[in-house]
Parts: sequence; structure tokens; C-alpha cells
Amino acid sequence: MQPDLLDLHVLHQFRTRSPLTHCMTNDVVQTFTANVLLALGASPAMVIEAEEAEQFAAIADALLINVGTLTLPRAQAMRRAIESAVAAGKPWTLDPVAVGALTFRTRFCHQILALKPAAIRGNASEILALAGMSAGGRGVDTTDTTASALPAAQALARQTNAIVVVTGEVDYITDGQRTRTVTGGDPLMTRVVGTGCALSAVVAASCSLPGDRLDNVSAACGFMKRAGTAAIAQSRGPGSFASSFLDALYTLEELA
Amino acid sequence: MQPDLLDLHVLHQFRTRSPLTHCMTNDVVQTFTANVLLALGASPAMVIEAEEAEQFAAIADALLINVGTLTLPRAQAMRRAIESAVAAGKPWTLDPVAVGALTFRTRFCHQILALKPAAIRGNASEILALAGMSAGGRGVDTTDTTASALPAAQALARQTNAIVVVTGEVDYITDGQRTRTVTGGDPLMTRVVGTGCALSAVVAASCSLPGDRLDNVSAACGFMKRAGTAAIAQSRGPGSFASSFLDALYTLEELA
Amino acid sequence: MQPDLLDLHVLHQFRTRSPLTHCMTNDVVQTFTANVLLALGASPAMVIEAEEAEQFAAIADALLINVGTLTLPRAQAMRRAIESAVAAGKPWTLDPVAVGALTFRTRFCHQILALKPAAIRGNASEILALAGMSAGGRGVDTTDTTASALPAAQALARQTNAIVVVTGEVDYITDGQRTRTVTGGDPLMTRVVGTGCALSAVVAASCSLPGDRLDNVSAACGFMKRAGTAAIAQSRGPGSFASSFLDALYTLEELA
Repeated sequence: MQPDLLDLHVLHQFRTRSPLTHCMTNDVVQTFTANVLLALGASPAMVIEAEEAEQFAAIADALLINVGTLTLPRAQAMRRAIESAVAAGKPWTLDPVAVGALTFRTRFCHQILALKPAAIRGNASEILALAGMSAGGRGVDTTDTTASALPAAQALARQTNAIVVVTGEVDYITDGQRTRTVTGGDPLMTRVVGTGCALSAVVAASCSLPGDRLDNVSAACGFMKRAGTAAIAQSRGPGSFASSFLDALYTLEELA
Repeated sequence: MQPDLLDLHVLHQFRTRSPLTHCMTNDVVQTFTANVLLALGASPAMVIEAEEAEQFAAIADALLINVGTLTLPRAQAMRRAIESAVAAGKPWTLDPVAVGALTFRTRFCHQILALKPAAIRGNASEILALAGMSAGGRGVDTTDTTASALPAAQALARQTNAIVVVTGEVDYITDGQRTRTVTGGDPLMTRVVGTGCALSAVVAASCSLPGDRLDNVSAACGFMKRAGTAAIAQSRGPGSFASSFLDALYTLEELA
Repeated sequence: MQPDLLDLHVLHQFRTRSPLTHCMTNDVVQTFTANVLLALGASPAMVIEAEEAEQFAAIADALLINVGTLTLPRAQAMRRAIESAVAAGKPWTLDPVAVGALTFRTRFCHQILALKPAAIRGNASEILALAGMSAGGRGVDTTDTTASALPAAQALARQTNAIVVVTGEVDYITDGQRTRTVTGGDPLMTRVVGTGCALSAVVAASCSLPGDRLDNVSAACGFMKRAGTAAIAQSRGPGSFASSFLDALYTLEELA
């Protein structure tokens, strides 16, 4: 498989700039998220207490907000971190896990949308719910195809000025005007917790890179898919996949 | 090794029904627990804020309560989730990690026992302590054999109307009248954090399946042991075991 | 590679005494930390609610305090655990993650330094910051070499009476008078989250062993490096490294 030249260029930026990525993410995926960022050469840091999160968000290159295991204190700390990132001109990315299905996080996600995320990454159900076009699913699994959520993604992008990424078998990346498509990966990836959440962290980090943000985010989705496809070929199931995926991210250039 | 026909039938139910399993579990084992459930085809979700936990417990098919890293706010959220699950007729399962050894969690476990768990899964020391027949060990490791805890398990099952599972080299599953035995696995499994906690999540999910609950829980213990035995054959130590175990859970039917 | 006889002796103590190690560590590395301790034969337990942490610190053989994802409630629980450990004569070890870079944790670390840690393990930037000789880096990654931090480590050891461990490509272990050097490992290890944090847990556990504490901590650093070197030879990247590292820790004697 021939990696796209743009993907390789963005990956090279990723490795050399090593974006310091402030991850306020859910408890289930923290380790995998950190390991994905490290394998790509980025520098993850999980800082969660409100005072520290506010201070660190201004220092870091990018901020990720993932509401998977949201609590009230965490929501307050996230809000302070976002405001600090925005004040310092640093991009922040929203992963609205299970938005629409649960009232507390849905209210929170709608509130922070006003704080101008640079990017939003979700599955079809989440993007539909965030755009106000669906009541959401029962939980974290999507019950809609990404194509069915594309109009919602485009509307959400125009409304928020964010890059919106809907991921599934096909990924769509849109700024509301332009839309990119990325294919690849394998259904086995949905049997490993955190693949989507880790992609959100990579999207967050890629928002800090120089150049066109739609290009950067699309390239990030591209090289994550490529690593997934390479890892599948080395795997006997979800356990060996998780390990092979990190190895593939670390050696992506050699897989070309 | 020939898998039992009952085990395969329950596994098939597991994969096709994909029980939405609300896990309120300890921080150390969340990722592994989610990956075990995903490898088996279930749908895990970790929702922990009290308001959300109450809402989600009524939506999910099953609830797991694991007190491994209990905190005061988590205990309050767990209580609301249990009450919501019970009101909605959804089964909940208790994993009383280190009960007896620590006062706060021991008090909490005894309180929630009154809320009618569908199942309880622990090691011998934990089951003895919960049944009031032991002062407990120093922590999470059992210092008793499962056979020595069987009378306590049977008494606890009769007292609570729960299926009680005592796991170790031999697993016993009892409803107080009938008792099943499952053998297999390997001591190496005790050198990987979360194997017992993940089994509790699988027990919780299996309580939501149609049919006889003792059969379903016994089958779940059976296919987890079978995956463990298969994974051992592929492992050079606890690191490769964890990965091989998830692969084995994903491909259990092929291992027949 | 011939393991040092001292390393093997301390490893044997580790496996046979199975120190019960109370880990109050950051959310990102809990699973890996537990698995590293288990692979070495120790008995980890993560107990975090203040009441329980106080009770358990007196029961356990050793306590680890890692401030990576410090929160206000966690800081209060840590303080109670430390005081309880000290009162019971149990050693506690500090891993001052990102001290110097963030105000809240820096204040906390300086406060608890007065509570007489048995050991302190950090990277060069952290040890420099804790010794008051640097303003710290931007986060968790060190920007200084371990050699440049050795004078700070020695001064900190004399000031606190703790064993101070500065780790990097070369590890230095010092009590302020005597200094040991351990080499080995590979830069790939910095691309796996938790290798340093897990080493701190092993240092904490080794502080509970009989014999000279500087010898015990140096041996622990030695066999961790040795397992890292062995695992590198089995790895294609950071994913397979993490798994191979645990396997190597489990089979260290056979690697001799």
C-alpha cells in the first residue's frame, strides 16, 4: 500500500514537532491514548485537576476533551482548561462520546460547543446527536452509517467553524465546505477499546501543526487507517491487534 | 479440548445479543475489562457520574459493581445505579474486591447486599468475608482455597438469592441448592491484573441472557477458563498471555 | 548478558517475599504498574479513598506516591496514607511526575518531602526541580541528562535522607554519599507510557526488602534495565515491547 505523500508529510511534522498534547479523556482509554501518541512521536500529558488543567492547557500545544467517563468535577476542570486554551490561542478538540444517549454529558457538550473547538471527532450517532438531528443510540456504539451522518457533520462544521470528523468504515472529514474521505481499517478495530478515542487525540494533536487544518486532520485519519490495515495483517484477534497497531504507528514510514 | 455444548450455546447468545454492560469497576482493570467484553461480542460502557449512572443503569442490559478502587463519590453513584437497575428489572453483579480487609468497602458491600444482586463473584477470601465467616486477607490476594469457601458460597447464595461464584484453580458456581464446578486455567493468570475482575464483568453480562442463570454463569466461567488454557499455550509470560487471552476469546469457536 | 549476582539475589527476595505494595499512582499507568509488580512476584494494590488509604498503608509493606494525575481529594488521601505508613514504620517512595512544571503538584511535593520518603525516583528535570535547581520542563518529558542532575540528586538525598534515583539512558542511584550507576535499556522505552512510573513502584517495593537499601534499589534498577534490554530484542515497536517486557520480568532468571 502506497502511503499518500500528504500523509507522510504530516506524519513527519508530527514526529519532528512532537506536539505536547493535553488529554482530558476517559478513564478507560488513557493508557492506549498515551501509547498511540507516543508511538507517533507526540508528547501526551494527562492533567486533570482544575487548577493544573487551566495552567497546563496554556502551555500545551493542543487540548483533547473526551467526555466518556465525565464527572461533575472533571466537567468543571475541562471548562477551565478549554477557556485557558482558547485564551492562549491553542486548539482544542471534542470527542463527544455517547452524546445524545445521556443527559448530563449532552448538556455539557452543547455548552462547550460555544467555546469554539478546532475539531470534533465522533461516530455517526454522536455527530447526528450533536448536530441535533438524532436522539442518539443506547451508548457508545453507533447505530448509523457515517454516510448518513455526513450532512449533519457538514452543518455542524458550518455552525461551529470546527473541522468535523465522522469515523466508521469510511471516515469523512469536513470543514463544512470541503469534505475528504478516508477508507481502510477493519471491523476488528471496533473490538479494541479506545481506537476511536485515540484517533481523537491524534486529531487534537494534528490541529496544532502548521498548514491547512483540513489537510492535517485528513492526513492523521489517513495514517491511522493505514496503521490499522497493516496491524490487521499481523493479528490473530483484538489482543494482538492492539499491540501490532502501536508497532505499526511507530514504523509507518517503513510500511510504505 | 472439546468445548461443552452448553458453553458454546451461551457463547453464541453472548455474541448475538451483545449485552450492553454497564461497568462501574475499579480504575486498574477498566481497559482490560472492556477489551474482554468486546472480544466476546458484548458492548461495554463505563458510566460513573451519579446522575448518568442512574440513567444508564436502566438502559443497559446488565450492571457490574466492582469495589476495587472505591471512593465515597463512586459509592454514592453505585448505589443510585443499583437502585435504578433493580427498578428497571436489570440484573446487577457484585465483585467485592478485598472485602473484609478494609473497613469502608466492607461496610458498603454489606449495605448493597440488601439490594439483591443477581450474582456475586469473588475469590475464596472475599466470599468467606462477605458471608461473615472470615476476617479477610491482607488485600486482593486470596489466602484460602476455593473448596474451603464453598460452604460459605452456598450459605451466601441462599441468604441473598444470588448466584455465587468462587474462583481460583477450581471455580464453584452455586445458587445455594445446585453447585457447578469448572476447572482449567493456569496460575500464570494470577500474574495478570484484571483476569478475575473481567470474569466478573462477563458474569454480569451473562446474567442478562435468557435461560437458566446458573447454566449461563457456569458456561461463562467455562469459556473464560477455556480461553485461558488456550492462551497459556501461546504465551511466554504474563505480557503475551494478556494479548493471547483476548485473541482466544475472540476466536473461541475455532479453538473447539 | 550475565546478570549481576546482587541483582539476582534481590530479585529472589522480591519473588519470595512478594511485597504488598500500596500504589497511589496516576490513572494512566495503573494497569501497567500492577502488571510489572505481578510479573516480578510482588502483590500490588491500588487503594485510594482517604479512609481506606490510611488503613491500608499501615498493612502494606510499601507505599508508592505518584503525582501524575494528582487531584485535590487524591492529595488529601495521599497525605493520610503517608502519615499512616510513617507511623507504622513502612517505607514510602515519591515519583514527582512533572514537578516544577505545574504549581499545584510542585507545592504538594515540597510539602510531603518533609514526611521522610525512603526513596525518590524521577527523571533529570524532575530531580532538578525538586532539589530547587531548575524551573522544570514543559511536562513529563525530561529536557536534561541524568548526569547533569547527579549533583542535585546527591544534594536532595542528603537533605531528605532518601535514596534518590535519577533515570534516563543512564540511571544514578544515590544516598548522598554513595552513588551507583546502571546502564542499559533503549530509547524505545520512552515511547511506552509508564515504564518510569512502574520502575518507581518497583523501587517502592524494593525499599521493603531486608538488607542495604541502596543495594536493593540499585539491584531493582538493574533488573528492570536488563528486562528492558531483553524485551527490545523481541520487539518490533512499542506495542510488542510492552508485552515482551512483562514476559522478560517474569522469566528474568532464565535470561541469565
